[in-house]
Amino acid sequence: MSKMLDEIREQPEALERTLKGELAAIEQLKARLARHPPRMILLAARGTSDNAAQFGRYLLEITTGIPVSLAAPSIFTLYKAPIRLNDTLVVAISQSGESTDTNLVLERARAQGCVTIGITNEASSSLARLAEHTFLVRAGKEKSVAATKTYTGQLLMLYLLAYALGAPIDLDNVARLPMWAAKALELEPEVAARSERYRFMEHAVVLGRGLNYSNAFEFALKLMETCYVIAERFSSADLMHGPIAMVEAGFPAFLFTPIGVTWPGLRTMLEKLNELDAETLIITDQANREALALRKRTLCIGAELPEMFTPIPYIIPAQLFAASLAGQKGLNPDQPRTLSKVTRTM
Amino acid sequence: MSKMLDEIREQPEALERTLKGELAAIEQLKARLARHPPRMILLAARGTSDNAAQFGRYLLEITTGIPVSLAAPSIFTLYKAPIRLNDTLVVAISQSGESTDTNLVLERARAQGCVTIGITNEASSSLARLAEHTFLVRAGKEKSVAATKTYTGQLLMLYLLAYALGAPIDLDNVARLPMWAAKALELEPEVAARSERYRFMEHAVVLGRGLNYSNAFEFALKLMETCYVIAERFSSADLMHGPIAMVEAGFPAFLFTPIGVTWPGLRTMLEKLNELDAETLIITDQANREALALRKRTLCIGAELPEMFTPIPYIIPAQLFAASLAGQKGLNPDQPRTLSKVTRTM
Repeated sequence: MSKMLDEIREQPEALERTLKGELAAIEQLKARLARHPPRMILLAARGTSDNAAQFGRYLLEITTGIPVSLAAPSIFTLYKAPIRLNDTLVVAISQSGESTDTNLVLERARAQGCVTIGITNEASSSLARLAEHTFLVRAGKEKSVAATKTYTGQLLMLYLLAYALGAPIDLDNVARLPMWAAKALELEPEVAARSERYRFMEHAVVLGRGLNYSNAFEFALKLMETCYVIAERFSSADLMHGPIAMVEAGFPAFLFTPIGVTWPGLRTMLEKLNELDAETLIITDQANREALALRKRTLCIGAELPEMFTPIPYIIPAQLFAASLAGQKGLNPDQPRTLSKVTRTM
Repeated sequence: MSKMLDEIREQPEALERTLKGELAAIEQLKARLARHPPRMILLAARGTSDNAAQFGRYLLEITTGIPVSLAAPSIFTLYKAPIRLNDTLVVAISQSGESTDTNLVLERARAQGCVTIGITNEASSSLARLAEHTFLVRAGKEKSVAATKTYTGQLLMLYLLAYALGAPIDLDNVARLPMWAAKALELEPEVAARSERYRFMEHAVVLGRGLNYSNAFEFALKLMETCYVIAERFSSADLMHGPIAMVEAGFPAFLFTPIGVTWPGLRTMLEKLNELDAETLIITDQANREALALRKRTLCIGAELPEMFTPIPYIIPAQLFAASLAGQKGLNPDQPRTLSKVTRTM
């Protein structure tokens, strides 16, 4: 049994712990931000945390109307450009809190007088020291090189950050996330059985849109780092602008398909992939009856989820799939070749 | 002979035409922006134009210090979020000017009173009508589905936009870009000869950093749409945060390696790829003597280029490579399967 699989299973408890541990500090931040509302938000991160930041970009823009930008770290670290960050809220996200470039963005922002927030799993990290407000993911030490429980913990913190910015986030639904994560975990035996089919898969494309766009990146990253699958990731719209040419008969495609505003486009994409005889697997839940009625290969979470709260439960079958497929391929997902847990880049 | 190859060859003249045709209007825009300097810039685009926007993001932040964000169109089109764009300069980029989602971002921005700019190759397009200021790429009709001359034309317009925003852009070097593009075209016979080796390449990774990050996306897109190669694209830093696990012996990797601030990291990446026995091909120029001294597989442009002005000449050998490899594979790069020239997505 891999540490990765253990850590995937810990997610309901980890989410519960994050929520209980950070809610009071979030209320304080809310009061502070109400006095000084930011005009812009800059998110800085790398790797899996950057995928969480991508989710944050969508969630924060959609729910607060504040423009959000994902930092390109090299602009700060290599080009040393003096970006003018007046009235910008700067949020750095890092599992270890030791990502050199992410921390440098935070330092520069603090020097300019920005309100700075750090989201990390490590209370005694450099990031926790550098940020004015630090929020702890409290997932417990992450031992597997492949990040899982810290990713969902980061997503949870971003819901709380949106709430702190005055967004109409339904805290009752936030409180249901651990339960929905547990529902997603019930898919483990089905995922394990399905993964065998993909033993010799060498490439794939993962598609998501809007709030689940980041999950396409995260699932692809898990496939790359734990299964050595060459996994592309796109929004369904971007796939149409060129890359779809590479999709031929049998091409494996994975889609995150919640009900809601992204579904009509994804349904069209599913039809297109069908025409091309691609092989699809969709991750959805009981609320998307239209998706279920298509009778495609499906991993369906046994709950009815509002679209806004699908990203955390939806990534769980994907994480299980990557861990299980690594096993099918005889690989150790906890120790991918070439990688180490803390990556320092500039 | 493909239209794609013809259009690649037209680039020096096309760039010359763009420059001559738009410089006066740029001076007018400069005067206007000096009176109302934006606090933020939002770039909206899809496909190849989105890769140009990615370049614009780096160039504009590095040279003006104004924060830049790449629009996530679905936030406007599907979620209909009321993003607050006060004092934001909104720039839409589209070859055809008929990209539905890009145009919608522009409409919303104009309704909020933003200064809006359209960059397109089509004078009578919807985009040209919608934008307050329209700049024409003047590349001449682009007939191949694979965009080439409009991409470099868009990059050129972004140098001029940076200049209009008061950035210290050396217009003498801008004026040399057509000549440097011509120098890059001299590599055509060498690229054609080299491409044969890659006849059976099925996947690849393209790496670039900073100002050449967008070229990694654009080269990968050309490989996907014209050669059906499953091409990943990363900054060298992001590759280290997970995806490098998929790189095994013989894995084809293409790198854009100018001299300058991105070179030390790329040199380290080259060493890492060597250790993994990956097969690299670097695109560089005579100014990067260190890269040449490594005696790796190299496509070297016969000129000494300042890093800031490498992106246009550097993409040309990559375009030639994709067109030539499509030929080796017996494919028609002008009519990739599944694609049409104008893509409308929401």
